[in-house]
Amino acid sequence: MIKGKSRVIIETVQPLVEGGLYPAKRTAGERVDVSAAIFGDGHDHIRAEVLFKKEGAAAWQRVEMTPTFNDEWKASFYVTEQGFYVYTIQAWVDHFDTWYDGFKKKANAKIDVTVELMEGAILLRTLGESNPELIAYARRLEDKSRYQTAIDLVLSKEFEEVVHHNPLRIYETKLNSEIKIKVEHAKANFSAWYEFFPRSASLESGKHGTFQDCIRLLPRIAAMGFDVLYFPPIHPIGKVNRKGKNNNVRSQPGEPGSPWAIGSDEGGHKSILPALGTLADFNKLVVEAKKMGIDVAMDIAFQCAPDHPYVKEHPEWFKQRPDGTIQYAENPPKKYQDIYPFNFENDNWQGLWDELKSVFLFWIEQGVKIFRVDNPHTKPIPFWHWVILEIQKDHPDIIFLSEAFTRPKIMASLAKVGFTQSYTYFTWRVSKQELIDYVNELVFGPSRNYFRPNFWPNTPDILPYHLQHQGENIFILRYAMAATLSSNYGVYGPAYEFYENTPIEGREEYFNSEKYEVRHYDWKRTNRMTDIMSLLNKIRKENEAMQSTWNIQFCPIENNQILAYLKATDDLKNIILVVVNLDPQRGQSGFVQLPKDRLKLTDKINIKVHDLITDEHYTWTQEWNYVDLNPNKMPFHVLKLEIHESNM
Amino acid sequence: MIKGKSRVIIETVQPLVEGGLYPAKRTAGERVDVSAAIFGDGHDHIRAEVLFKKEGAAAWQRVEMTPTFNDEWKASFYVTEQGFYVYTIQAWVDHFDTWYDGFKKKANAKIDVTVELMEGAILLRTLGESNPELIAYARRLEDKSRYQTAIDLVLSKEFEEVVHHNPLRIYETKLNSEIKIKVEHAKANFSAWYEFFPRSASLESGKHGTFQDCIRLLPRIAAMGFDVLYFPPIHPIGKVNRKGKNNNVRSQPGEPGSPWAIGSDEGGHKSILPALGTLADFNKLVVEAKKMGIDVAMDIAFQCAPDHPYVKEHPEWFKQRPDGTIQYAENPPKKYQDIYPFNFENDNWQGLWDELKSVFLFWIEQGVKIFRVDNPHTKPIPFWHWVILEIQKDHPDIIFLSEAFTRPKIMASLAKVGFTQSYTYFTWRVSKQELIDYVNELVFGPSRNYFRPNFWPNTPDILPYHLQHQGENIFILRYAMAATLSSNYGVYGPAYEFYENTPIEGREEYFNSEKYEVRHYDWKRTNRMTDIMSLLNKIRKENEAMQSTWNIQFCPIENNQILAYLKATDDLKNIILVVVNLDPQRGQSGFVQLPKDRLKLTDKINIKVHDLITDEHYTWTQEWNYVDLNPNKMPFHVLKLEIHESNM
Repeated sequence: MIKGKSRVIIETVQPLVEGGLYPAKRTAGERVDVSAAIFGDGHDHIRAEVLFKKEGAAAWQRVEMTPTFNDEWKASFYVTEQGFYVYTIQAWVDHFDTWYDGFKKKANAKIDVTVELMEGAILLRTLGESNPELIAYARRLEDKSRYQTAIDLVLSKEFEEVVHHNPLRIYETKLNSEIKIKVEHAKANFSAWYEFFPRSASLESGKHGTFQDCIRLLPRIAAMGFDVLYFPPIHPIGKVNRKGKNNNVRSQPGEPGSPWAIGSDEGGHKSILPALGTLADFNKLVVEAKKMGIDVAMDIAFQCAPDHPYVKEHPEWFKQRPDGTIQYAENPPKKYQDIYPFNFENDNWQGLWDELKSVFLFWIEQGVKIFRVDNPHTKPIPFWHWVILEIQKDHPDIIFLSEAFTRPKIMASLAKVGFTQSYTYFTWRVSKQELIDYVNELVFGPSRNYFRPNFWPNTPDILPYHLQHQGENIFILRYAMAATLSSNYGVYGPAYEFYENTPIEGREEYFNSEKYEVRHYDWKRTNRMTDIMSLLNKIRKENEAMQSTWNIQFCPIENNQILAYLKATDDLKNIILVVVNLDPQRGQSGFVQLPKDRLKLTDKINIKVHDLITDEHYTWTQEWNYVDLNPNKMPFHVLKLEIHESNM
Repeated sequence: MIKGKSRVIIETVQPLVEGGLYPAKRTAGERVDVSAAIFGDGHDHIRAEVLFKKEGAAAWQRVEMTPTFNDEWKASFYVTEQGFYVYTIQAWVDHFDTWYDGFKKKANAKIDVTVELMEGAILLRTLGESNPELIAYARRLEDKSRYQTAIDLVLSKEFEEVVHHNPLRIYETKLNSEIKIKVEHAKANFSAWYEFFPRSASLESGKHGTFQDCIRLLPRIAAMGFDVLYFPPIHPIGKVNRKGKNNNVRSQPGEPGSPWAIGSDEGGHKSILPALGTLADFNKLVVEAKKMGIDVAMDIAFQCAPDHPYVKEHPEWFKQRPDGTIQYAENPPKKYQDIYPFNFENDNWQGLWDELKSVFLFWIEQGVKIFRVDNPHTKPIPFWHWVILEIQKDHPDIIFLSEAFTRPKIMASLAKVGFTQSYTYFTWRVSKQELIDYVNELVFGPSRNYFRPNFWPNTPDILPYHLQHQGENIFILRYAMAATLSSNYGVYGPAYEFYENTPIEGREEYFNSEKYEVRHYDWKRTNRMTDIMSLLNKIRKENEAMQSTWNIQFCPIENNQILAYLKATDDLKNIILVVVNLDPQRGQSGFVQLPKDRLKLTDKINIKVHDLITDEHYTWTQEWNYVDLNPNKMPFHVLKLEIHESNM
């Protein structure tokens, strides 16, 4: 039906992911910034508002939109509870506001406004049906014996408020859809991940680690402030075509194999590698970790070793070759003979999907709430869309981290269809401009509404070139950036804190990679790195500004080796300025500019600065402030700013 | 229903206007460039195709898409007939292509490919069900006695063609919508408009012109090569509050008033101003013009003089003020008391919409096929959406030109909802960079799919600052740009060709504007400007490259006062290079670079150049070529390039 009296057009609404096919994402407490192009015909004034509510709620909440530039309008609201919200926009030609604006122009031009006063009174009476205050104003406009008094009233500040608070909503144009926002668990937005191989957890050299050993390491990890403990797969490891040390295609007897070659006669994706312990041991670990505020994250790698039980039970899930063998993984001419990928195009695909879903459900029953999904980009994207929806229907708290180091559109797509967090290119962004561009793209680009970054300086698969053969300074500054640029970050812990820096030459891989062997670490040792881990995680927990990735603003500083960025809560009650020296060799200094608009600074600046790393205090009274970073002392500052009241 | 085996994702398809709410636009014969992000999981190869057809046709035509960069794919097709087309995209994991790529890599790495040959044979047999040629290839791959011969076959150029021409379409992902393309009359894309006031058509000074006078002027306009003759409103002009010379609020007796103040006791929007003649005279004019290849365009200004018959017949269509008067047009504190706007929010809005539609239909019955709509942005956009759809349902050839000189989003919106052509900001784009940026935005920006520009160097409302008090050089170069940058252009003729350059000081308005008086022109006179009009319109008709706005490419030239642009047909059979000296005072010269890729030039360049203005011929053998423009001689070149065969 055409609504002939509705004259306003609403277009290009944001947030909107793939035309509404997927919800935009937030976590409880986060702000939603809505924008749209809104316009009508002629000179009449438009008013617009965002309507939002928790899905299923009866009543809408409203927030007025304001025009910015070029017919763009915006408004913000906060989502406070987990679950789905919906929002929409309505806009209308506001005749009260139009009349008010015309009245002011005419009255100021000393044009007779007798009829205009009558029109104003009619509008006030229309608005005032149940509002005696407005009727009273109408009467004052109608009092012909007090023409000038009536004009003065309309031109008063008081009357401006009357107009502002009384939108005349008629013939509204309402957006023809309600747009979904998925509000997830706060941890989706704020988490610090620590990864280690449980088989390397033993304090005794040469011994295969167990979950019991892991439990003994929990206090160390808790002391460092991490809240997610992520293990590579803990399932039985294939014995057929098992890989040896340094990815040797033949293993020696006793070599443990890669945990990602899942399944053997000891079981598959719902079993525990006997050398690690029992399911009861694992359950105990989950409970003990939870007591220390740590969630155990499970690695989900949907692929099978040749001796995985699925291969015999469901041969139809794998691709049979003409010679009767099963297709192993390959990226020609490379072969991965210890791995059989699932053939998702098999005729029993629904059986496969159901089984894989049951793997998640099995571990959820064991208390697992976080899954790190291995190589999701090598399984069909529609499968992820389905399985994440299916799981979160009954378990909305579950977090899925996408380990897809692949092409940008595929990483984005996995996030759109449901992954809660995603690994990023941070691992390879090194120069100042690269870092600024990448973070700004993540935070202010369209992916902000669906892609939650998780920054990792290293992983068991990646020892990036810039860490190879390098000393602790670069390890420290890369860690500090991961932990302060992004509210979600993680680290492949022991290799990082003990500065493992030896690659397979020419590649970004660890030499003697823990993927193929049991390692021994001196778990009792602490060092400068572990101190910094502890301190930064403490700062993150104590400072709300650090608990969001979306509140960042890079600050100008005329030194290409210094990166400076500010994070602040919307109410400016918590403001953190991080300054990082990107040069691990030399001291660097410069003047950093504070964002005056964002911080609402007047010309009289008076800011108390507390360096949360060194515990030093000083006062800044200028917009541009000197910073000096000696990497051998500490390659970064984390400065807490308190703006003196008189400045606000 | 989930299609579990379909693994490809198709996103961000273009052209798509407002998510499919409005069709993309083309004219018959134009190319449609389709693009999309297409990707899947893993390393498997994807193939994709655009399916397109005339709406309602049974069979799809297919064109294969090719990947460009970053998972973007593209394909083009031509729409040949007027009406609606639809297109969609399908894509699939192509196992034949994937196998072929893996085979080559393995064979080249000297890996045993016995099983791969068997797999290839199976794929060929799958594809070859009704294709004996493919079965024959399968047999050659199966011949184990000729292993190396089979390998050589697969690695041959011949087999590459086999793979290319035999997509293995299974488990296709099809875009879940069919996207509409509205294919309009060719004139929508290629037209030269000439505007004059019929009341100024008399050859005798002091006499009010008539349609008979207009008929006498047709040969002049036809000789200049225009194909649209556009008149300001030809209806009875209001007598109440009639405006006088230079927009005086009081007219003197005998003053004709503004033709945009429509309606009097002599009739309204379906009547003819008696001083111009009768409806029969108008009909004759339309017929005579048509004989010379000229369409008469009607001005549609939906507003009324106070004495318009509608005011009495339908008082509900106007806004009544509390004092019993009718609201005249205003932009406070400015008043336009000779005009009553319609109140589109009236309760009989449907009656108003129907009546306004009937105005179009009335003039269509008189043979009018083109409407220039006055200030459409002051009437509701949903009304235009409705009325243009309604009219074009039965009269698909009808062209609507939007005269909306307003904010960008509103101009865009009017084009989206249906206007065929639109006035533009060209009128005010003067510097080289402004012109390049603006044309590139129109041609390569998102509005390309719905906004067809019509470039006007002047209108009766606008004498832009850069023409004020200026001589003929700038008039010539602005005209030349309008006629060659855009395939649709127009000019407020007599004021332009006779170099009217006197403004109301400080404003972009004509002094003694023809809007408020009858003017006399020496219609028998020709001059340098009329010669150029004739020549450029002839060049436009004879050179297909000039008949599109969408084929432009600006060419680098290191002189900020010279603008150079190339237009070429897709087949390069017609190539025009236009070079304009933007400086009306001084000669300018420089070297212009030819686009080697676009013109498919090799290093051995041999181009015949024909200056279509001066009829000079020369030969270019370099990528960079010298041009020199003396504005007093001719401020622009129109060069026809013929690339010697050996170069192609």
